[in-house]
Amino acid sequence: MVKLVKNAAGRMVPVELNGKKQTPFKGVGKYRPEGYKHAPKIASCADYPANGDKRVKSLKEALIKAGLKDGMTISSHHHFRNGDLIMNQVFDIAKELGIKDLVWFPSASFPCHEHLIPYLEDGTLNRIEGSMNGPLGNFTSQGKMKGTAVLRSHGGRYQAVQDGEVKIDIAVIVAGCADPFGNANGLYGNSASGLLGFALADSQYAAKSIVVTDNMVAFPCVPWQIQGNYIDYTVEVDKVGEPEKIISGTTQITKSPDRLLLAEMTAQFCDAAGLIKNGFSFQAGAGGTALAVGKYFADIMRQKNIKARFARGGSNKYLTDMLDEGLVEYILDGQTFDLDGVSSMRTNPNHVWTSPFTSYNYHGKGNFAGAVDIVILGATEVDVNFNGNVVTHSDGLLLHGIGGWQNCLFSKTVILPLPLFRNRMPVIVDEVTTLCGPGELIDVIITERGIAVNPLRKDLIKAVENSGLPLKTISELKAEAERICGVPDKPEFTDEIIAGIKWVDGTLIDVVRKVKN
Amino acid sequence: MVKLVKNAAGRMVPVELNGKKQTPFKGVGKYRPEGYKHAPKIASCADYPANGDKRVKSLKEALIKAGLKDGMTISSHHHFRNGDLIMNQVFDIAKELGIKDLVWFPSASFPCHEHLIPYLEDGTLNRIEGSMNGPLGNFTSQGKMKGTAVLRSHGGRYQAVQDGEVKIDIAVIVAGCADPFGNANGLYGNSASGLLGFALADSQYAAKSIVVTDNMVAFPCVPWQIQGNYIDYTVEVDKVGEPEKIISGTTQITKSPDRLLLAEMTAQFCDAAGLIKNGFSFQAGAGGTALAVGKYFADIMRQKNIKARFARGGSNKYLTDMLDEGLVEYILDGQTFDLDGVSSMRTNPNHVWTSPFTSYNYHGKGNFAGAVDIVILGATEVDVNFNGNVVTHSDGLLLHGIGGWQNCLFSKTVILPLPLFRNRMPVIVDEVTTLCGPGELIDVIITERGIAVNPLRKDLIKAVENSGLPLKTISELKAEAERICGVPDKPEFTDEIIAGIKWVDGTLIDVVRKVKN
Repeated sequence: MVKLVKNAAGRMVPVELNGKKQTPFKGVGKYRPEGYKHAPKIASCADYPANGDKRVKSLKEALIKAGLKDGMTISSHHHFRNGDLIMNQVFDIAKELGIKDLVWFPSASFPCHEHLIPYLEDGTLNRIEGSMNGPLGNFTSQGKMKGTAVLRSHGGRYQAVQDGEVKIDIAVIVAGCADPFGNANGLYGNSASGLLGFALADSQYAAKSIVVTDNMVAFPCVPWQIQGNYIDYTVEVDKVGEPEKIISGTTQITKSPDRLLLAEMTAQFCDAAGLIKNGFSFQAGAGGTALAVGKYFADIMRQKNIKARFARGGSNKYLTDMLDEGLVEYILDGQTFDLDGVSSMRTNPNHVWTSPFTSYNYHGKGNFAGAVDIVILGATEVDVNFNGNVVTHSDGLLLHGIGGWQNCLFSKTVILPLPLFRNRMPVIVDEVTTLCGPGELIDVIITERGIAVNPLRKDLIKAVENSGLPLKTISELKAEAERICGVPDKPEFTDEIIAGIKWVDGTLIDVVRKVKN
Repeated sequence: MVKLVKNAAGRMVPVELNGKKQTPFKGVGKYRPEGYKHAPKIASCADYPANGDKRVKSLKEALIKAGLKDGMTISSHHHFRNGDLIMNQVFDIAKELGIKDLVWFPSASFPCHEHLIPYLEDGTLNRIEGSMNGPLGNFTSQGKMKGTAVLRSHGGRYQAVQDGEVKIDIAVIVAGCADPFGNANGLYGNSASGLLGFALADSQYAAKSIVVTDNMVAFPCVPWQIQGNYIDYTVEVDKVGEPEKIISGTTQITKSPDRLLLAEMTAQFCDAAGLIKNGFSFQAGAGGTALAVGKYFADIMRQKNIKARFARGGSNKYLTDMLDEGLVEYILDGQTFDLDGVSSMRTNPNHVWTSPFTSYNYHGKGNFAGAVDIVILGATEVDVNFNGNVVTHSDGLLLHGIGGWQNCLFSKTVILPLPLFRNRMPVIVDEVTTLCGPGELIDVIITERGIAVNPLRKDLIKAVENSGLPLKTISELKAEAERICGVPDKPEFTDEIIAGIKWVDGTLIDVVRKVKN
């Protein structure tokens, strides 16, 4: 049993995970890295085709040439979401070649990757480090994965690669459009996903990088969201993804009256607090409630005749319409969620692709998150100290990734519109099951039965005190939920640690344990 | 006296320069780097302003905060060319602060930097590593610089920084447009220079980076050719450059009948050799002759109804007209030479900014140079073995930088249109004064009195043998020049080494010695 220590958030965390030494969370902004960025081996053009054509015949050939062997870390990105057709093939090939003990390091995995469970069982894969949405998360929560999962935010993933905490042996970068040299983008072709920012760190720091596309164009592939100068091999295949699943169809504005109410209250709060003013900025994500918040923002902006300097995406039709209307000057986009987002990014120079490096990397010389005035986020739970959880459900199962959630907490005002309960389970609890974000960074909880402002934000409290908005303390909100639903049972866990939760600086903020059956 | 060794090109080079160990040139593609890329210290957002505003009051304050001290290496880029107003100020400040023994590491210096000669004399500056056009080159050739100059190609400069051969302490990045976070471009404002690619390595690898602009815009500055995530401080000043000198006024198509003839012969040669075909690519640079070559290419393309996939810039009106006409699909631009180039880059998404990393870095996983079909270059001398010199004149003075010249030698067909003599000095000699590029990479010498194809390019010789073009051997061309001008005196040198000439892989291909007065 690995030794546990109490971190600055009061959580017991192991001193090592998967045999690697861990630094316990020290508090927000308290840990200072000492070392140097990961330094990949110097390459030479003398070892690459003189004419720049790096094509090989198949994915298998590329993996073999890249030196695939036992124990390697294979990375991938999730721009294809649940429509990815490549990563299952990668591990099919590994299995066929008899390779063992691989670490899969995706920026996120999806239900389509349930296919990999046999490889987790037979030892082809040791573990997954990355978010596991759905079946793989459930599998992990049952304690069935050999290694321990490690969950990182989008920015934390960049940080881990940049800092050499995760050394990628082979990066598999799948693109809607690429050239034989390896320049690639997600803007064109049947499998256009918008951008490829989640693969940036992989391209820059992996020992070997492979670009896979079903839309190989003559050099140059413009724009090069991924630079061929970082790529070792390029592969053309018939189909890299299922377009209808690449672009999520679920990003419709909510029709639920409860959620619309939350969205409207959120916009009202921001307006009352004076946050919606000319030149402001916001990030509202792509959930149904968040989309509705954008719509209410737009109404207020039109009414006041003001515009936003920029909006951060997740982009979709609602946000690109605001860009086209001139309500926002720029979209700084990390991920497109519909074809309108892709098309806007392709044609409108003010719809700008970003990356976890620009937006979220905490071990850079600043990042974009701090420049955003208002960020609207979700959570599975928050507690009376405003701490937030986004990875485990009320049943204790690890079913979600962190995404950009932790990184966005560094924006100027962080607002969580949340239903007071879900399926009769209160969302506000005494203590979050899994700590993903410290309460000092979470400013406002908006529920259908009242709004709680973090006492640390005296300025916000003062700004809205006479607004007529239903202001309550978070304890009052919790009590109200419990009056309705009763006090919920806590999920039961064994001692076994099945996942580590990293903070944005690479320290360990919490762990997830195996659920008791 | 430092020990000299004979390198693979037969040149005697020192085993160290400025106290740093050197690798002698081993032959084209023969040296394999063993090490790892330079790893900058890991930063933390906790040490940067939470809202992303990194502005400080003055250049002096920025330099002091960046820790300017004796012996540091200060880098800069040359996008402002002879209109730069900042770098003289940087060293004025260093002088004022009593700092000594600085190394200036510009991508190029210009006559406007003659102002720095007193600082080279009084010890504020130890040396310049970078091309020295004009007065500083002359000063260096007289043996007056304390340290030894080191000249690198644009790609070699990226390579040296990437590989940690040159460790930049403070990068000064001057931009026509920037935001307080440090995102910057050269596309907007009174000092728009087009792009900022020469500062890319500096931003990525310097310990501290400063962005200076006279056009500070609200975050985000889009596009971010330089990423604020690499920047420590931002400074707003009244004026960063003299616009009329930033954009060179000399890039007019030559009116000289001799040069027009060279250009026409070059185009005829390419046509006869079958190089001008649909989807081909070329790089013609910005000299008067090169521009004329572009014009003749355009005529042939219209006549044949074909288009080029891409042209590499240096861009200017002539090239952007070809883009607008649809004769070239993309301009991959490294440097804009007139306002039409800047405007085209700002508005036409097919006019793409590149960097020495994408285009020229030999220690990458390939670069763009190898993908270019035809490249047209100049030279101060070539010799009977097709070796080329671009840095020293017939009087032995070091008056030019290498620019992208060495890097472009890796393109598929390298053509040098050259007058057979200049000021009655033959351009073809027995042995170049300074070896900048090995003859095996130089394919064709085109002079007004005949064309010499490198015997290594049997394919080209065969392709043009029945073309009616005036084909000669290079020795015949040399003899013809000497019949007209006589055999020239060789420049006389002392033993003192005043500059090292790096090959694209960081090895030492030659040196320049102090001229005898």
